[in-house]
Amino acid sequence: MDISEPTLLLNENICKANIQRMAEKAQRHNLAFKPHMKTHQTAEVGEWLKEAGVKSITVSSILMAEYFASQGWDDITVAFPANIRQAENLNKLAAKVDLTLLINSPFTAKKLNNQLTNSINAYIELDTGSERTGLKVEQEEQIKEIIDTINAAQNLNWIGFYSHPGHSYDSTSEKEIQAVHQSVLSQLNALRNNFNSEYGDFEVCIGDTPCCSKGNSFDGIDAISPGNFVFYDLMQHKIGSCEIKDIAVAVICPIVDKLPTRKELAVHGGAIHFSKEKMQEKGIIHFGKSAIEKENHWQISDSESYLKALSQEHGIVECSDDDFDSYQVGDLITILPVHSCLTANLMDSYRLKNGDIIHQL
Amino acid sequence: MDISEPTLLLNENICKANIQRMAEKAQRHNLAFKPHMKTHQTAEVGEWLKEAGVKSITVSSILMAEYFASQGWDDITVAFPANIRQAENLNKLAAKVDLTLLINSPFTAKKLNNQLTNSINAYIELDTGSERTGLKVEQEEQIKEIIDTINAAQNLNWIGFYSHPGHSYDSTSEKEIQAVHQSVLSQLNALRNNFNSEYGDFEVCIGDTPCCSKGNSFDGIDAISPGNFVFYDLMQHKIGSCEIKDIAVAVICPIVDKLPTRKELAVHGGAIHFSKEKMQEKGIIHFGKSAIEKENHWQISDSESYLKALSQEHGIVECSDDDFDSYQVGDLITILPVHSCLTANLMDSYRLKNGDIIHQL
Repeated sequence: MDISEPTLLLNENICKANIQRMAEKAQRHNLAFKPHMKTHQTAEVGEWLKEAGVKSITVSSILMAEYFASQGWDDITVAFPANIRQAENLNKLAAKVDLTLLINSPFTAKKLNNQLTNSINAYIELDTGSERTGLKVEQEEQIKEIIDTINAAQNLNWIGFYSHPGHSYDSTSEKEIQAVHQSVLSQLNALRNNFNSEYGDFEVCIGDTPCCSKGNSFDGIDAISPGNFVFYDLMQHKIGSCEIKDIAVAVICPIVDKLPTRKELAVHGGAIHFSKEKMQEKGIIHFGKSAIEKENHWQISDSESYLKALSQEHGIVECSDDDFDSYQVGDLITILPVHSCLTANLMDSYRLKNGDIIHQL
Repeated sequence: MDISEPTLLLNENICKANIQRMAEKAQRHNLAFKPHMKTHQTAEVGEWLKEAGVKSITVSSILMAEYFASQGWDDITVAFPANIRQAENLNKLAAKVDLTLLINSPFTAKKLNNQLTNSINAYIELDTGSERTGLKVEQEEQIKEIIDTINAAQNLNWIGFYSHPGHSYDSTSEKEIQAVHQSVLSQLNALRNNFNSEYGDFEVCIGDTPCCSKGNSFDGIDAISPGNFVFYDLMQHKIGSCEIKDIAVAVICPIVDKLPTRKELAVHGGAIHFSKEKMQEKGIIHFGKSAIEKENHWQISDSESYLKALSQEHGIVECSDDDFDSYQVGDLITILPVHSCLTANLMDSYRLKNGDIIHQL
């Protein structure tokens, strides 16, 4: 391959299959499918989502919303607590697209409404166990106060609840994912039962890749907004969300040095390419694993080689004996990332199998 | 401040003072000063280095070398093992500037020479304890073979040895830094003594910020190439390289949610702004610390607040009671980064105190 520097490969077929599988699952369960674009951040993957019937998307920043609005998307949820300092951008965006935000306090609702000139939809965010942002379902009085404040606000339109059950990322098996998923469903259905009589119908959206990939029931859920599933990665594989063959991105790194006494390879591919996201498996902490392409998928060989250390541009691969002998300085090595979202964000562009380069926002 | 999204502030005065201090130290010890540009990656900080008398620079990639060459720098060391797949770029660069690479094997020397059309200087990299790349000083026969191969190569010119004693980053006090520095000097001087008679005079360059900041003797060293010192950061402070008041960059984050039951603030400022580099202090693992500006420096208040968790765009700040009460949704909070090189790389631009924005490559 004519690759001379760290390059993020995107296997279009795997990515499209991941999209198709999730789109069909959403349809099967009668769920609105609002995929999160933060993982790939590129118009092209957006087009593949359109081909799978997607009409509404989720993003994590106004910047990303602006980019995808410019690509023709007109129904965008910013799944992030509303930033009241960005009212000017919100007004511009809301003039062009159906915009939905997360509003987690009466204070934010009031402050935002005072500055809005266009109507914006609002979810209230629920913390179903991730302990990041949002309210617990038990905080009924506070939730009601937010709904009432939003409903009284001229330019805000309350549409329901949003939750990112990020604690599913702590799972280490499909069974554990199912347990998280059931707990999330129980919480959200309890809330639904309590609020339906007073507030009529509303939408409930959940957004994590593990639960959306492995959940079998979506009773009481109206919409899903997973993001990582388009690419998956080693962490999702460890969690139990996917198979290795579902991973759609890999970083190709030139080998620049061999360290025979340590059976290690030095590669161009460091923290500014992979990110410093790491994981632990079989007692080994690593930032990625070497892979080979076989039958149009990446596979991890039995004698595993790990990306054991990263500095800004350097990566150090701890090799099995076989791998060490088979690679030479000047060769390319393929490494599957631990967390594809952060790797993709750092790499800025993708190379497809045909050599085409597609760029991010 | 008119800041509405995560923004990297650069205090020009602190940065210039850091540059001036290191330039004077280099002069005092009769060292060539070849600062590493990977930390800031911007032409403007390059100009401040020029003002301090810098003529030669160090970078970590060909991409960075090309950028700084386009900014008028004409003596550039790429402190990274030569990537033989990039010969075309190297030829173009070497036609414009004095280019120096690291060559760590006869194989690389031969492969590279076969493809070169312009003359390039070569350091051999020495591993003085960091266990990243390069040869141990004891590997005399291998080192001699590389020198001989380079000397026999038409387009390569051997100029000496380069070492990045990255193990100084494991220090937790100035005393430990001094111990690493002394060990590095001993190794390099032993090598110098052994090689001087056979190979005449050559240059020895070392490049880590802790040793360059705190080392008192540089006997046997000809050049230094630290990078991080222009900004410093919390990790350098912990190591013992700098004071908090020497830190020249901080990330300003809008506060988007308050979590009263956990005394935590949610901010817009996540892994794609700070990086996932973390550190441990007093048993707390964190990704940054809140600070206030006072007397033209950032200071950490006695009641410390930590950036305890990061996801892609979210940051969660665990607050002291005082800090929690004093911040409101919509306020800005200032957070000092753990590792300024990775944070700067992610942020792409800096905001100066006068509001001007300066961009990176």
